[in-house]
Amino acid sequence: MNHPISSPTPVFTPNGNDRDFLADFAALSDFGATPGGGVERQAATAADGEQRAWLHEWLTSRGFEVHYDNVGNQFGLFTINPGAPYVLSGSHLDSQPLGGRYDGAYGVLASAHAAHRAVRHWAGSESRPRYNVAVVNWFNEEGSRFKPSMMGSSVFTGKLPVGTALATADPAGTTVETALREIGTIGDFEGPDVAAYAEIHIEQGRGLEHDNTAIGLVESTWAARKYQVVVRGEQSHTGSTIMADRRDALLGASLLVVAVRELAEQSTDVPLHTSVSEMTILPNSPVVVAREVHLHVDLRSPDEALLDAAAKKLVESIPGIEERASVSIEQVQTHGWGVAPFPTAGVELAAEAADKLGLSHQNVMTVAGHDSVNMKDVAPSVMLFVPSVEGISHNEGEFTHDRDVCAGTDLLTEVLSRLMSGALDHST
Amino acid sequence: MNHPISSPTPVFTPNGNDRDFLADFAALSDFGATPGGGVERQAATAADGEQRAWLHEWLTSRGFEVHYDNVGNQFGLFTINPGAPYVLSGSHLDSQPLGGRYDGAYGVLASAHAAHRAVRHWAGSESRPRYNVAVVNWFNEEGSRFKPSMMGSSVFTGKLPVGTALATADPAGTTVETALREIGTIGDFEGPDVAAYAEIHIEQGRGLEHDNTAIGLVESTWAARKYQVVVRGEQSHTGSTIMADRRDALLGASLLVVAVRELAEQSTDVPLHTSVSEMTILPNSPVVVAREVHLHVDLRSPDEALLDAAAKKLVESIPGIEERASVSIEQVQTHGWGVAPFPTAGVELAAEAADKLGLSHQNVMTVAGHDSVNMKDVAPSVMLFVPSVEGISHNEGEFTHDRDVCAGTDLLTEVLSRLMSGALDHST
Repeated sequence: MNHPISSPTPVFTPNGNDRDFLADFAALSDFGATPGGGVERQAATAADGEQRAWLHEWLTSRGFEVHYDNVGNQFGLFTINPGAPYVLSGSHLDSQPLGGRYDGAYGVLASAHAAHRAVRHWAGSESRPRYNVAVVNWFNEEGSRFKPSMMGSSVFTGKLPVGTALATADPAGTTVETALREIGTIGDFEGPDVAAYAEIHIEQGRGLEHDNTAIGLVESTWAARKYQVVVRGEQSHTGSTIMADRRDALLGASLLVVAVRELAEQSTDVPLHTSVSEMTILPNSPVVVAREVHLHVDLRSPDEALLDAAAKKLVESIPGIEERASVSIEQVQTHGWGVAPFPTAGVELAAEAADKLGLSHQNVMTVAGHDSVNMKDVAPSVMLFVPSVEGISHNEGEFTHDRDVCAGTDLLTEVLSRLMSGALDHST
Repeated sequence: MNHPISSPTPVFTPNGNDRDFLADFAALSDFGATPGGGVERQAATAADGEQRAWLHEWLTSRGFEVHYDNVGNQFGLFTINPGAPYVLSGSHLDSQPLGGRYDGAYGVLASAHAAHRAVRHWAGSESRPRYNVAVVNWFNEEGSRFKPSMMGSSVFTGKLPVGTALATADPAGTTVETALREIGTIGDFEGPDVAAYAEIHIEQGRGLEHDNTAIGLVESTWAARKYQVVVRGEQSHTGSTIMADRRDALLGASLLVVAVRELAEQSTDVPLHTSVSEMTILPNSPVVVAREVHLHVDLRSPDEALLDAAAKKLVESIPGIEERASVSIEQVQTHGWGVAPFPTAGVELAAEAADKLGLSHQNVMTVAGHDSVNMKDVAPSVMLFVPSVEGISHNEGEFTHDRDVCAGTDLLTEVLSRLMSGALDHST
């Protein structure tokens, strides 16, 4: 993975705000740093605890009050207007195994800097904002250690019971509750009253880079369908069992992985993203035919009808796989969402703010899930993207140019200031 | 998995020796017993330690001296003729995860009973045997917790350096040496001087049952080729990464699993057994395209030329898989053996012993590896099989009728008595 030595655009000269941001981002990137230039700080691990303590200190030293709710979401509140609701801005600090240093972390730090700058902006203004401002670091957005992903924002928005979340165990048997208590970031804060929500994130795609555009304004999500699949065969000896007697769950799972890829290969006009990336194989011994394999199937498209047709084709492919591998396959949809819009008024607000700052922008869809996808259902929400070099994501080589992260933070500052004035009050 | 309620052959009435054996076998089957009727006692686990202590007590209470060598092989020596070499008989007590209770354990217990009976036979005789007798429980034949399989007999026969074996770690990072010290069964015994070796095992195939034959006399092994394969791709986001950018190691691995199965499907005249049953997937997260998958390929056939042709086809299939999944694949043969004969004189000796006892017998090949496959290279060796119901193996439902296990133990007693007299002295 090589990054361009020089930016394709003119040399970037950071100003004072930019230098402050970049220094803090470098400091944050040290937590869980990996030799390949990425980070590994899965939810509620020691590295996650350390970065949360660092953010806690950053916020309190600038006048924010830090609180934790009952699923470990970390809030930093700056109250200008006692009793008024808050404009909330954030993302997540947790990462994938060998993840990149921008995914989530950029959005949390940009929110902290933007909120701090917005507070200063209003302090220098003759009027008071209608709303206060708060920063949030959502717990366990990634879902690699504890499933499902977007756990903290799902609990906050009432989509997942807190008891279910706290009782979820990682593969070693440690529950969310135990892990959060170990790093000391769980509390009884009920969360701020949210007037509006904003989030900024790297694009995790090639679109903005390809179009040489500084900002993506997210107008909707792709649709997604996620399935839990269990393939059941029977244990037997890999050497002595005759082929006709084998009921090989790993063969069945492998045929399914190939069938899932073929769905994408058959869709040439409209994008369809399909994947299987996790399997649990039992007993996973070199001389025992697998009795059972658990795997996840992930299908995504901007076209819901196409997605439904793909899901139907997948179901239709199962009997043939069951017969060929002499297994039984059980498929359950665990999660899914349609093509869901973000409020138009928020996209327009962000476009006007970008125009004011002279930042090029275009409307985009988000393929990946984000905490904003939960938040948009409970508060007027604005989701912003900055470019990702080569679209590299969930990889140590993930990269965004300094110019772009700084421009995004400037834009988020302007958006928060406008939201604090009540700009989206009548949008939903 | 259902066992026949009644044996297809006439009712079996156990004699005193049989009842002793069956009671001991029931006791032994309690160690690591699983709800499905099998056992789980992988090498050097607590359950393995407990059964070793039980065997230790069984042997010492009958006049055997128990010693452990530097890789945890457990020897029980009965010395009639001080200074003379030993006829060694044994197998292994360790099991696969959710394994059957006969695999290995039957051979160890049959050896203990047969050696004890042979000692009594010679005590009642006017002559003294040329050789003493010893029982062995080889360490880690299964290879599920620590690789490779047949570890103890490989070290004993000089095929694997003891340092390599002791430094081998399980997936949790525990080494063989640490695990053996925890269960207290490692020592400095150098092993007996071996005059001849015998082993009895369940067939793990359907041949004897199909032919209604009591005993299989192993005349040779199938050939085998084992490969370690690494599929290398690149981590990326399962949602947002466009399909053309993906380098999906799990797709590459799945295509390989299917290609391995197709080798067997294409071989219709001569048997070819092919399998992949273990994979390590990195990072194995539901939203990260796998960067790397490690897997084992196992190819076996009674025809070496066919096996070589299959191995060549497998190599030829790799470039197409690399291209389709945008991965690189590295394949290394880690282990293999040809069609290797057991000494003809040993097969003849066992056939005469079976005839004397009125047991039907036929010559067979072994598909599975056994410790005898190592031992036959250093001492005249005899390998015996008893039938397996439906050929079920490495499965809790593994089963052999009482009649057959008792007949096998009777035969092993006769074989050990003959070997102790020096019957194979000039056979190799």
